[in-house]
Amino acid sequence: MLWYGHLPNRQELSTLETRFSREHVLPNQVIGFLKGESKVADPLSALQTSVSILGGLGSRNEPSLIDSSIGLTARMPTIVATYHRLRKGQEPVTPRPGLGHAANYLYMLNAKPGRPEHVHALDSYFTLLADHSLNASTFVARIAASTLTDVHSAVVAAISALKGPLHGGAPIYVWEMLQSIGKSENAESWLRDRLQKHDRIMGFGHRVYRTEDPRSRILKELARQIVDPSLFELATTVEDTARKLLREQHPERPIDVNVEFYSSVVLHAVGIPPELFTCTFACARTVGWTAHIVEQLQDNRLFRPDAEYVGPEGLTLEATPPGTSA
Amino acid sequence: MLWYGHLPNRQELSTLETRFSREHVLPNQVIGFLKGESKVADPLSALQTSVSILGGLGSRNEPSLIDSSIGLTARMPTIVATYHRLRKGQEPVTPRPGLGHAANYLYMLNAKPGRPEHVHALDSYFTLLADHSLNASTFVARIAASTLTDVHSAVVAAISALKGPLHGGAPIYVWEMLQSIGKSENAESWLRDRLQKHDRIMGFGHRVYRTEDPRSRILKELARQIVDPSLFELATTVEDTARKLLREQHPERPIDVNVEFYSSVVLHAVGIPPELFTCTFACARTVGWTAHIVEQLQDNRLFRPDAEYVGPEGLTLEATPPGTSA
Repeated sequence: MLWYGHLPNRQELSTLETRFSREHVLPNQVIGFLKGESKVADPLSALQTSVSILGGLGSRNEPSLIDSSIGLTARMPTIVATYHRLRKGQEPVTPRPGLGHAANYLYMLNAKPGRPEHVHALDSYFTLLADHSLNASTFVARIAASTLTDVHSAVVAAISALKGPLHGGAPIYVWEMLQSIGKSENAESWLRDRLQKHDRIMGFGHRVYRTEDPRSRILKELARQIVDPSLFELATTVEDTARKLLREQHPERPIDVNVEFYSSVVLHAVGIPPELFTCTFACARTVGWTAHIVEQLQDNRLFRPDAEYVGPEGLTLEATPPGTSA
Repeated sequence: MLWYGHLPNRQELSTLETRFSREHVLPNQVIGFLKGESKVADPLSALQTSVSILGGLGSRNEPSLIDSSIGLTARMPTIVATYHRLRKGQEPVTPRPGLGHAANYLYMLNAKPGRPEHVHALDSYFTLLADHSLNASTFVARIAASTLTDVHSAVVAAISALKGPLHGGAPIYVWEMLQSIGKSENAESWLRDRLQKHDRIMGFGHRVYRTEDPRSRILKELARQIVDPSLFELATTVEDTARKLLREQHPERPIDVNVEFYSSVVLHAVGIPPELFTCTFACARTVGWTAHIVEQLQDNRLFRPDAEYVGPEGLTLEATPPGTSA
C-alpha cells in the first residue's frame, strides 16, 4: 500500500510475495564483504555498508524505482541475519522460498522456522514500524532522493540517521533499563533515582505525540500474548510507574510511552537479540523510506534551505588572488 | 578555520599538517575492501562504502569530533586514489609524509609529485569548495548528526546526497558538453540546439545565486593559468555564448555560470580524470560537512519536521486487533 497507494488485491499480493521470495537472496559481493568483515563493526554499521555495496553493484536492467525498493526491502533481513550468524561463528542460512518476509527473517536468524505467534508478532511489528511521516531518517532519505541519487544511496543515508541514539537506537536502552531494574519492586526507586539525576527515561516521550503513541497500544497487546508473564508484568509496572513519576515532575507536559518501549520486549520475545533491535527497525522502515523516495520523485524539487549567518563579524577574509602565495 | 572558528596561527597550522600527514594512511580493512571490490562500483559509490567501513571500525580511543573530522578528511583522497589505481590495474601509492593534502592526492593518483601550479590550483579548489551553507548534502549531514549518529555515518549520508546529478554530479556533464562541442565555432549551434530541445545547460544556474557564482570567477582565473589555451578559449566561448542565449530565452531571469563550469576544466588540467570529479568534490566538501556537524552538535535539537497529509481520503484502514488473522 505504501509503494502503490492502494492495498493489493489477491493477484497483486501473490506477485509481490513471489518477488520478495526471489529477492531475499544476497549477491556474492555482499556475502563476501560480510564474511571478510573483521566483525568489529556493529550490525547496523555492517548493514549500512552492505546496502552501499548493493547500490554500487547497480543493475544493467535499470529496474524501476519500486522494483529497486522491493529488492532492497527483501534483502535487508538477509543481510542482518547473515552478519549476525557469521559474528557468532555460525554458517549463514539461505532464505527459504515460500516463507513470508517476517518468517524468513526468524528462519535465517535461528536456522529453524519461528513459532506462528512469533511470526505474527514480528509481521505486526514490521507493519507498525513501516512508516511514520517525516522522522529524521525519512527526511534525510527524501532530501538525498531530491538530488536524483539512487534508491540505495538514499536508504544508506537514512540508515546513517537511524543509527543515532535519539532516533533508532532507543529500544536497546529500554531493554537495558528493564534488565537493570530486574523486578517490579525495584521500579519506583530505580526510576526516582534516574529522574533525580535528570537522566532521560528511555521509551518515553515523542516529538509529535503529546499522548500515548498509538502504535504502543498494539505492541503492548502483542507483548501480553507472547512475552514471559513476569517480564510483561515488569514492563507494565515500569510503564505505569514512569508515567506517574513523569507527571509528578512535569504536570504541565504529559509524557507517555512511545513505540520503542514495548518494541523492545516484543522483539526480544520473538527471538531478536538486543544488538539487532535497530537493524530490525531498519528492515521495517525500509518500506517507508522507499515509499517516501517514490513520492519525492513524483514531483521533485531539490531541497536547498537558506542559511542565515549569525556568527561573529570580522571573520570575513579577503579573497587571495590566485597565483600569489596563498 | 571552519572547524575551529579561527584561522590557525603558525603553531596550530603545523600541528594540523602533522596530523593530516599521519592520518592519510588507510586501515587494512578499507584497503582490503577496495582490493576485493569487483570494480563494478563507480568511484563515488566505493568512497561511500569505504567511509561506512571506516565508521564501523570505530575507535577505542574515543577521539573528539574534530579529531574524527580531521582523520576522515585526511583519508578521503587516499581512498579515491587507491580505488582509482586498483581499477586501472595499478598498485596503490602510499601517501608521502610531508606532502600537503592536495599535493598528496596528486602524488597518490599519479605515483609522482604534481607540478607546483597544479598543486596550487587543486589546493585553491579544495578551499573554494570546502563549504557552501545548506546545500542538500550538508543539510543531510546536519540532520543525520542531530540524531547523535557518528561523524562517519553523517558523512556517508552526505556522500549519498552528493551523488545525485542535481548536486555533485554536474562537473562531469560540463566536461562531456565541452568534449561534445569540441571547438568554439560549434558552440552557438550546439547550445541553440539544446535550448530548443529544452535541455538543461550544465554548469549554469544556481538555487541561491541570481548572478555569477563568486567562486567561478576565481576558478576561471586559475583555469586561465593552467588550462591548455585552446580548451580555455573553448570554455570561455561556451560560457559567453550560453549566457547570451540564456538571456535571450529568459530575459527576466539572469542565469550565469556556477561553480561546476570552471571546476571541470581546472580539475582536468591538474590531472583528475572526469570519473573522479565528484569524488574530488567530496574530498573538498568533507571539511564543510564535518564543520557543520560540529556546529550542529554544539546546540543540538533533533530535526523532525511535521508532515501534512494531502492525499486522497478513504485510505484510512481500521487497525486490525492483534491476534486476529490480519
